[in-house]
Amino acid sequence: MYKIFGVFLLGVILWFMPVPEGMDPQAWQLFTIFIVSILSVVFRVFSILLASVLGLVLAVFTQTLSPDQAFSGFSNDIVLLIVMAFLIAKAMVKSGLGIRMALLLIKRFGKSALGLAYSLLMTDMLIAPAFPSNTARSGVLFPIVFSVAQANGSDPEKGTEKKLGSYLMFTSMAGIGLSSAMWLTAMAVNPVGAAMVSGYGVDIHFANWVLAASVPTMVAALLLPWVLLKVYPPEIKFTPSAASFAKEELKKRGGMSRNEKITLGIFILLVMAWSLSELFGIDRTATAFLGLGLLLLTGVYTPADIRKEGEALVTMIWFAILFAMSMALYDLGFMSHVGLLISKEIEMLSKPLAFLVLVFIYVLFHYLFVSQTAHLLALFGVFISAGADLGLYVTGLAFMLLFATNYFSVITPQGSSCNVLYISSGYISVEEVYKYGGLLTLFFFVIYNTVGLAWVFWIF
Amino acid sequence: MYKIFGVFLLGVILWFMPVPEGMDPQAWQLFTIFIVSILSVVFRVFSILLASVLGLVLAVFTQTLSPDQAFSGFSNDIVLLIVMAFLIAKAMVKSGLGIRMALLLIKRFGKSALGLAYSLLMTDMLIAPAFPSNTARSGVLFPIVFSVAQANGSDPEKGTEKKLGSYLMFTSMAGIGLSSAMWLTAMAVNPVGAAMVSGYGVDIHFANWVLAASVPTMVAALLLPWVLLKVYPPEIKFTPSAASFAKEELKKRGGMSRNEKITLGIFILLVMAWSLSELFGIDRTATAFLGLGLLLLTGVYTPADIRKEGEALVTMIWFAILFAMSMALYDLGFMSHVGLLISKEIEMLSKPLAFLVLVFIYVLFHYLFVSQTAHLLALFGVFISAGADLGLYVTGLAFMLLFATNYFSVITPQGSSCNVLYISSGYISVEEVYKYGGLLTLFFFVIYNTVGLAWVFWIF
Repeated sequence: MYKIFGVFLLGVILWFMPVPEGMDPQAWQLFTIFIVSILSVVFRVFSILLASVLGLVLAVFTQTLSPDQAFSGFSNDIVLLIVMAFLIAKAMVKSGLGIRMALLLIKRFGKSALGLAYSLLMTDMLIAPAFPSNTARSGVLFPIVFSVAQANGSDPEKGTEKKLGSYLMFTSMAGIGLSSAMWLTAMAVNPVGAAMVSGYGVDIHFANWVLAASVPTMVAALLLPWVLLKVYPPEIKFTPSAASFAKEELKKRGGMSRNEKITLGIFILLVMAWSLSELFGIDRTATAFLGLGLLLLTGVYTPADIRKEGEALVTMIWFAILFAMSMALYDLGFMSHVGLLISKEIEMLSKPLAFLVLVFIYVLFHYLFVSQTAHLLALFGVFISAGADLGLYVTGLAFMLLFATNYFSVITPQGSSCNVLYISSGYISVEEVYKYGGLLTLFFFVIYNTVGLAWVFWIF
Repeated sequence: MYKIFGVFLLGVILWFMPVPEGMDPQAWQLFTIFIVSILSVVFRVFSILLASVLGLVLAVFTQTLSPDQAFSGFSNDIVLLIVMAFLIAKAMVKSGLGIRMALLLIKRFGKSALGLAYSLLMTDMLIAPAFPSNTARSGVLFPIVFSVAQANGSDPEKGTEKKLGSYLMFTSMAGIGLSSAMWLTAMAVNPVGAAMVSGYGVDIHFANWVLAASVPTMVAALLLPWVLLKVYPPEIKFTPSAASFAKEELKKRGGMSRNEKITLGIFILLVMAWSLSELFGIDRTATAFLGLGLLLLTGVYTPADIRKEGEALVTMIWFAILFAMSMALYDLGFMSHVGLLISKEIEMLSKPLAFLVLVFIYVLFHYLFVSQTAHLLALFGVFISAGADLGLYVTGLAFMLLFATNYFSVITPQGSSCNVLYISSGYISVEEVYKYGGLLTLFFFVIYNTVGLAWVFWIF
């Protein structure tokens, strides 16, 4: 009860505070609503669904946002892509294909939780350069992770999610941030950032990106499963008989069924379309709708199956609302305004400290963002120019900010659309993401800005 | 199989037909996709979900619609209002308030299916003048109808929907079209139409609208439950012991529980806000979000409850897609173009025949519309001006077209957002709406254009 009161009080104080000079008063109001909504989730006052719904109601009734603005997230293509990816993933599981792929994975790497985690990370790293949409990539990886968990008897519906599934899900979720940092083409906005720094004489392309990213990303990827094993451990770490069980199970299943074959075909089609989407201008979300359409057309998945997936609706509601608010905050110029204020504040610091503070604040800012793209567009330019003005090492700063734009995805539940899919599974709670996601982001920050920075400094 | 082929063939023929002179080729392509999607539902080739998803995919991949246009329905406020109304209705049922209201109704009118049907219609008629949004009104009525059905042991999950529920649902769904026709203020677009004919010297206001509407609407409302009893009969028509059962059941339940009281309070708040929304500029959809927020805040309804409501997601997907397509068809000028063509074609008919043909075609056109508002905006002006040019009785034509804009809501599943809620219940299938909804629309057309027209002619 005192928590509700505290959040409420904070909201009132922020609301009636004098608006920072030069800032749009509407931007300040929206910031108040947004930050109070998020804090009410962090401090477990409200569920993320309730916090979002109340945030929307407040924003509309105080005329901070127009109804159209407030509702706009529901038709955002990233939000719809997530909903479709959710349904397609469920169809993959239902057809039995998910389990088959999981069993194949377990057969090879299934002796320990760590082995499975590494094999999932590796799969992600290898397919990432061909996937400009990390959201679409999560749509591919999620059903496999889900099935691996299920095949090992770890299921949130039976209360056994902590047995293995939670650990694997979290590893894979955080891993997508790393695989995105590894390749220039693994996230839609990486090339945009690279283009933005060319004005500062920094030339970033596919080859020098992967070279610069390789060392810190490999270190982070090698440590990630092990760190999570310590702070967020699965109940079973070793499954010595899992490989032979998987082998036997695969034998029992025999050849692929009609539904498995069809699903595999659709899956391959989607993977191809998604990885070529940038090149040929194929709409990623319409592709996902096509995938669902084909699954329904072939009867592999039915409207009756979707009727059970209310979770997708819950996910859609909170994510669409937070998405719209964060985008409006960006459109109203809130983010860049504060970015400029900060760059002024750090003038008096020593150069190395200013460098670290700049990157750290850039990362912290992701608490306010629902979209990595919007984050980069709003702040990357501001922070690079502040760094250049202060005479910092611009190439290093550019890489550190660009890598951060990827690895900080795990800082909040809404920090990346990928997370949304993993959380919807029930294996990971919203509060756990705030806790361990924040911790991992800090951990990645340290690796990239020590080992990574030294490596970048050495090779360039 | 031959049906799939037939629909496919029709689509190909329409697609490659020469575009009617003066029409935007994109409008013709979209019309082809839209009409083929709808026909594939009418002829049971595809489910309405699959037809919509495939329609969206075709529209985007042929570049008939941009992805943004195709997805826009998901953030439309009417679509979101329906989704929220769906969830609030479920919360009303869960709290027990729905059943209590249903038992009170059964206690008084529950001796026969007909008695219940009339009492539901009457409730609707009485609250309608205060509800400028028929969609919001369906949100109020639906949970009561649902609970009446459940209290009588009629439940689609047990295969007993035809026992009583289907009949009551259909009566109430068609009844909303009649209650909307009864009052100038019972549907958002009625006053718009009234304003549009003032240029022709026809002065329509609250009092003469209800006077003109009273006779045909009363006749239609009196006949509706009886007609449906013949063509779409419930399995049980008489429930002589229902009243005493309801009385006993109410006694057993005792006073209202905490959750019932809270739900009732929220319900009254919503009804008040919805009925005053026009007056004070309160956003109807944000009000619905507020309703859901309060239900979640008080714990009457929980995120876990919503996780079971995948049906709301299915409904949202197909309705949002059809909504967006129909609106785009309107924006591209398809509707008014064809309206003008038709008005030229009927020049040679006798005046009374031209009058009836004009109204009839206006009604038929509703197969293409998902929004009654868009229908009126697109065609009402065209048809009135065509009638005036032909020297028809403009006052009568104005009323006949305005009444039609309300009663034809039941012609297709997507003909009004209200229907969507009733269909989502599982008591009424999409195919049944095409069949019996079409029949009822024809029936209403006859009543309004005989009895109604004579009455309007006599009083003015």
